[in-house]
Amino acid sequence: MNNSSYVLLEATAVEALAETFRVLGDATRVRILDAISRSELCVGEIADLIGLSESAVSHQLRLLRNMRLVRPRRDGKSIYYTLDDQHIVRLFEEGLVHVQESGRGLPR
Amino acid sequence: MNNSSYVLLEATAVEALAETFRVLGDATRVRILDAISRSELCVGEIADLIGLSESAVSHQLRLLRNMRLVRPRRDGKSIYYTLDDQHIVRLFEEGLVHVQESGRGLPR
Repeated sequence: MNNSSYVLLEATAVEALAETFRVLGDATRVRILDAISRSELCVGEIADLIGLSESAVSHQLRLLRNMRLVRPRRDGKSIYYTLDDQHIVRLFEEGLVHVQESGRGLPR
Repeated sequence: MNNSSYVLLEATAVEALAETFRVLGDATRVRILDAISRSELCVGEIADLIGLSESAVSHQLRLLRNMRLVRPRRDGKSIYYTLDDQHIVRLFEEGLVHVQESGRGLPR
């Protein structure tokens, strides 16, 4: 190892990355992300799919929006949600493959 | 949306995924993963790089090993650590690109 070749992440980036993972580290939020990773959905649809109240789903979506993990799209009176971008899609997928390959999650 | 086309993740997978993200959601562990994402390192080298005691680093490495996020390799008396597999490498990279693009982390 040659220390001088090491340029580690800045503290700001470390904190932002840890915070992003922390927000993802919650079963309810994982279920919401799982649902909208399959198609764009509105709050009521997400609530039905995962068996939570609309207000509970809205609360979590607000948090996920603040972290730019999900993206809203207004269509008339409804707002539809998707994963924010391809990085989030892949991040979620890589995490899933990891838990499946390490034998800690059942196959999809 | 067509509900019948939805096969959501099993509870076991949801929990495993949330737990994986939760373990990643800690600044010290992010710093360790950042360091070993650049080259294979032993405990002493990681401790030097990120300015922590070897015992603190060992404690976090044990946790990361239990989640199969890092992989040890014995070489004589030393044990070297790398990210467990390419899924973890990509998961970490996608997270980093996300925080950089969303303007919450400084560029690498």
